[in-house]
Amino acid sequence: MKAYIQENEGRFLEELYSLLRIPSISARQEHKPDMIRCAERLKELLLEAGADEAGVYPSKGNPVVFGQKIVNPEWKTVMIYGHYDVQPPEPLEKWVSDPFEPEIRKDATGRDAIYCRGANDDKGQLFMHIKVFEYQLRSGKLHHNVKFICEGEEESGSPSLADWVRDHKEWLGADVILVSDTTMISEKVPSINCGMRGLAYLEGTLTGPDHDLHSGHYGGAVANPIQTLCDIISILIDKDGRVTIPGFYDDVVELSAEDRAQLARVPFDLDEFKESLGVQELRGESGYSPLERIGIRPCLDVCGIWGGYIGEGAKTVLPSVAHAKISMRLVPNQESAVITRRFKEHLEKIAPAYCRIEVKPCEGGEGFLIPISSSAFQAASKAMTEVYGIEPVPSRGGGSIAVLADMQKILGVDPLLMGFGLERDTIHSPNESYLICQFHAGMESISKFYEYYD
Amino acid sequence: MKAYIQENEGRFLEELYSLLRIPSISARQEHKPDMIRCAERLKELLLEAGADEAGVYPSKGNPVVFGQKIVNPEWKTVMIYGHYDVQPPEPLEKWVSDPFEPEIRKDATGRDAIYCRGANDDKGQLFMHIKVFEYQLRSGKLHHNVKFICEGEEESGSPSLADWVRDHKEWLGADVILVSDTTMISEKVPSINCGMRGLAYLEGTLTGPDHDLHSGHYGGAVANPIQTLCDIISILIDKDGRVTIPGFYDDVVELSAEDRAQLARVPFDLDEFKESLGVQELRGESGYSPLERIGIRPCLDVCGIWGGYIGEGAKTVLPSVAHAKISMRLVPNQESAVITRRFKEHLEKIAPAYCRIEVKPCEGGEGFLIPISSSAFQAASKAMTEVYGIEPVPSRGGGSIAVLADMQKILGVDPLLMGFGLERDTIHSPNESYLICQFHAGMESISKFYEYYD
Repeated sequence: MKAYIQENEGRFLEELYSLLRIPSISARQEHKPDMIRCAERLKELLLEAGADEAGVYPSKGNPVVFGQKIVNPEWKTVMIYGHYDVQPPEPLEKWVSDPFEPEIRKDATGRDAIYCRGANDDKGQLFMHIKVFEYQLRSGKLHHNVKFICEGEEESGSPSLADWVRDHKEWLGADVILVSDTTMISEKVPSINCGMRGLAYLEGTLTGPDHDLHSGHYGGAVANPIQTLCDIISILIDKDGRVTIPGFYDDVVELSAEDRAQLARVPFDLDEFKESLGVQELRGESGYSPLERIGIRPCLDVCGIWGGYIGEGAKTVLPSVAHAKISMRLVPNQESAVITRRFKEHLEKIAPAYCRIEVKPCEGGEGFLIPISSSAFQAASKAMTEVYGIEPVPSRGGGSIAVLADMQKILGVDPLLMGFGLERDTIHSPNESYLICQFHAGMESISKFYEYYD
Repeated sequence: MKAYIQENEGRFLEELYSLLRIPSISARQEHKPDMIRCAERLKELLLEAGADEAGVYPSKGNPVVFGQKIVNPEWKTVMIYGHYDVQPPEPLEKWVSDPFEPEIRKDATGRDAIYCRGANDDKGQLFMHIKVFEYQLRSGKLHHNVKFICEGEEESGSPSLADWVRDHKEWLGADVILVSDTTMISEKVPSINCGMRGLAYLEGTLTGPDHDLHSGHYGGAVANPIQTLCDIISILIDKDGRVTIPGFYDDVVELSAEDRAQLARVPFDLDEFKESLGVQELRGESGYSPLERIGIRPCLDVCGIWGGYIGEGAKTVLPSVAHAKISMRLVPNQESAVITRRFKEHLEKIAPAYCRIEVKPCEGGEGFLIPISSSAFQAASKAMTEVYGIEPVPSRGGGSIAVLADMQKILGVDPLLMGFGLERDTIHSPNESYLICQFHAGMESISKFYEYYD
């Protein structure tokens, strides 16, 4: 694979760039045409790489790209999941280069990286699988059937894919769902995710007076909805860092002392962690380490808040409305629908009589666990050990790929999360990038995975 | 005056519209050229009305328009203060017609009103004085010297006018500073303001991690600056509705039982008040009536808040920064600079170690009281009694015209607040308007004020 990468590097980048240049932002209606353009381009790339068939299939939302190469029904089938949609690029002013014009620059450590929205998440990581497939096929090494299922709504919580999977179940038989859409702890500490958190994401709108008021003429006599919203948000977490929604922790599986000890073996440097974030102190649930707070404990975050006058200068307004977007990360066995309902009921209950509250669920999905003992996990571990020279540790990712839990249930196939992102890649943030060395190491690891998985 | 209004109504409106069409938003740098255009137009209107001299004078900020007609040094001098700048029009989508294209429409009560940003505050109210001056002069009734001082920064807290007044003190001798920039309680309950609140306005910026984070990869382990900001805002007001900044109430003058009884005579219908705002319940400082909370008590309001992702759909971000704009309305003898300092010190003190806070003062000014016994106040009361058929009640306005306290101090001249706005005019909000009947009654009242003031 190494030699093949060297020979084809220019072409690989040009092909990847053709995907990256399409601003396929699933959160924004106005980007619908870009979603279709991106899906079509992905189909072309699958066909060019050697898929027997590939198509852009309608779903309730953005289209699904499905392609496959069935060589021998007796062989094992690897189904690759990925997504071609990306996060919104805002705040734009913080990007060094155009978020949709890929550029290779040296990063702070002097290494080359591709800077672009989607360079890692997930166009860059998905693209590695297409090129490994191409290599396997052209070099005559392919001894698996390969399927690709790529969606355009992962960054919006995959609202349509589970239904599409249910409707196309007969196409989707496989032995493993291989996914590169996560990070590893570091290049020195390669890791394979063996679990991810679920998600419940809601938007709350709080209304006070039915129109904006002059803050002088009314201030002091009428409840201010921004302040009421702040009051409500403030009591959602108590002083021990615990979420106060009744029943929130009811279904959380507490880890055994043994499992916690196992998790504690993951190397973690507190000072380095704080320095990488520019913070003096951390905050989280009492009684748990930072890695536990991310990996095995649920949490609540306000992802956005807005209300009143947010322009330049001073405007003395007592606004009518305030809004917040709130995400909760869930762990096994919390159910997204249950937590969503409990959150909504709780907020409606605690909202005081001097305001009206509306809580709208936005997206959700379940967390999941992956058995470490499976042959797929073992093959991935062996592959990465060879490429990185170190055995990867099993880790718990804090993020969510909601639809994988659904696919696991519907198809009865376990996912395998071989992620080659690093925290430095700042996915979801300005200046997302993907190290060229990880791009290469990822392709080598995936190629070796095929070698050992049978 | 009544007949003169009828004869000239079309011209009056056209002249007023020429001011209203200029988007003189002082909070926005990009409107600098509009500020100058608006000042020049105001100067023209003063000269056309009969001023001996009028000019556009530079200040540290937007220019000051000054014009006068000195007829007889023995006569009393009325100096009219007004402002030609306006509030930003946002949120634009809530305007029925263009915020800078005046339009006369019937309102919910079937009465004609001019809809436009500035229709009332303060272009419409200032314009009445120009037309009364014109009438007095042309009809040979003028027996006062008249001066106009108009600024372009009132909506931004008048940062430059006090210095300009100090520098031009010798031009500004007068017996009263007449101002129409406030509201009356209702048309059935005309009122004259005998006091206004001061203002301290600040912007706070709270930083957590030094870049936006993926809420899945970090959520639960890193303090979220939006939540920390909400925590801080939430404790700025206690459960009794009192501001918790140490020393906040130290200098507040408590009213005597007698004064409070006098104030309680102002008619106030709680149900009507709540209905006009669309709220079920009010909230404010315990132990004070709604009118007291607005008129004689200080308060704190969040005028704007923003942070994280505020676009369409769901973005799972743990943001780096959150912001809030906070105004405090002050009463005698609270000093704006002292309160600003106490607020800043308090926030810096209570901000937890897992964030950094920056507090930036935006604007401020002192409150003031006006003696009811003065001959000017009595003349205004007599004038309005004739026009409205009811004696106006002295009231306390909750808003602020910070620079009037400065002018009172520098020039030793008391202001007189004859305001003809109504709460229905929704100044500072979408669909600001000014009732034609109040526009007319205002001019009649001002004209009669000149009759009785000597």
